[in-house]
Amino acid sequence: MSEAVNGGTLYGVGVGPGDPDYMTLRAAKVIGAAEVVAFFAKRGRPGHARTIAAGLFSGNCREMPLVYPLTTEIAPHTEEYRTQLAAFYEESTAAITAELQAGASVAVLCEGDPFFYGSFMHLWRRLYGRWPIEVVPGVTGMAGAWTRAATPITWGDDILTVLPATLSEEMLTDRLQATNAAVIMKLGRHLPKVRRALAAAGLGSRAVYVERGTMSEERILPLEAVTDETAPYFAMVLVPGEGRRP
Amino acid sequence: MSEAVNGGTLYGVGVGPGDPDYMTLRAAKVIGAAEVVAFFAKRGRPGHARTIAAGLFSGNCREMPLVYPLTTEIAPHTEEYRTQLAAFYEESTAAITAELQAGASVAVLCEGDPFFYGSFMHLWRRLYGRWPIEVVPGVTGMAGAWTRAATPITWGDDILTVLPATLSEEMLTDRLQATNAAVIMKLGRHLPKVRRALAAAGLGSRAVYVERGTMSEERILPLEAVTDETAPYFAMVLVPGEGRRP
Repeated sequence: MSEAVNGGTLYGVGVGPGDPDYMTLRAAKVIGAAEVVAFFAKRGRPGHARTIAAGLFSGNCREMPLVYPLTTEIAPHTEEYRTQLAAFYEESTAAITAELQAGASVAVLCEGDPFFYGSFMHLWRRLYGRWPIEVVPGVTGMAGAWTRAATPITWGDDILTVLPATLSEEMLTDRLQATNAAVIMKLGRHLPKVRRALAAAGLGSRAVYVERGTMSEERILPLEAVTDETAPYFAMVLVPGEGRRP
Repeated sequence: MSEAVNGGTLYGVGVGPGDPDYMTLRAAKVIGAAEVVAFFAKRGRPGHARTIAAGLFSGNCREMPLVYPLTTEIAPHTEEYRTQLAAFYEESTAAITAELQAGASVAVLCEGDPFFYGSFMHLWRRLYGRWPIEVVPGVTGMAGAWTRAATPITWGDDILTVLPATLSEEMLTDRLQATNAAVIMKLGRHLPKVRRALAAAGLGSRAVYVERGTMSEERILPLEAVTDETAPYFAMVLVPGEGRRP
């Protein structure tokens, strides 16, 4: 890396799937040198990314929690949801901008990889071109999951499709039928729908359920053995490919 | 990580997309402690994974190059290809087994992530259950590519489809039409076909070409500006999603 860790630079730092040892060397260096460490968190929670990276914070760094508004009761496709989240990202951007203007280096911690379904992207698009930005890629949550599940995900010429569980049952079924391997993210209350879509696509028996992959409360079992009606945020379903194996 | 780096253990170690700073803390620890470091390489080449990780080798580790047979002239779907590669993986497995039997720790270096289109998987499936194995996930080549291209790949409820360029033009077009974001891997001589499939799916203008992402000879430009008829192995095409952006 040619870029030094200076003040006035924004870092979007992937902290990986959960196990702190799965942070990159670059992430460790940037986090340890940052004057301000920012992280997303739900109200009243410590923030998953902070939990992963806290062991690397320098003794005198300042912490900037970015606390999501309470949107759990609002559907993500409504204008109200969009408005509340946009205001939140604008406020977060303003807080970070103030630090950058004062010459501070700001590291925003991101679960997994910053550019793969990451909240950081909403700050990035507001700050890109205005400040020096370095994005540090990370091990994705899905890579942590398939590693711990001992299920190589793609072989030979396998197609991999990553599907948010928020999609309709029809769309999920259709896309599952057209792929060799799949990862279904953001399970939550969508678990029963995902189960039906996998069954309709003939993939129920191949599906593996991974909850909190690489974290201390990790839980991995065949989806058919899972009787829960809802899943936590850090849960996903893997459908390993079956491609060429010389 | 609870497991120590002992003799008689096999490690499949993701070394990330190319920049050595994108190796994980766990990868660095395992590589630095390994008695034997194995890596895949084409004949006469140093091996990409070795190049990435060599700075971490201990002074007294033994290197075990696993040199692919010359299969470039053989189509991957033929029996001859399968037979030659199977023999190669059997020989590699035997060489690693001999080291494990002698009590040595063996780290097999893997570009990107070991369980994502990795040659290591072919050793893993021959050794799984017979020896202690630890797989260390890595930053994928595609994450390195979308980071350096400054293109967040998936927003909101975007579907991501990962497609090997080896697929037929019809299949590529069909799958590109059914996704929000895409990564097309293994470009090589398939570049003209990929270009046609993207055009047919109406995605030509959104496609970004990334060659050797995060490496010193990195080359990133809109696919429409690429006039090459073939691409190197470390080249891919990204089609960034355009999902929800509050």
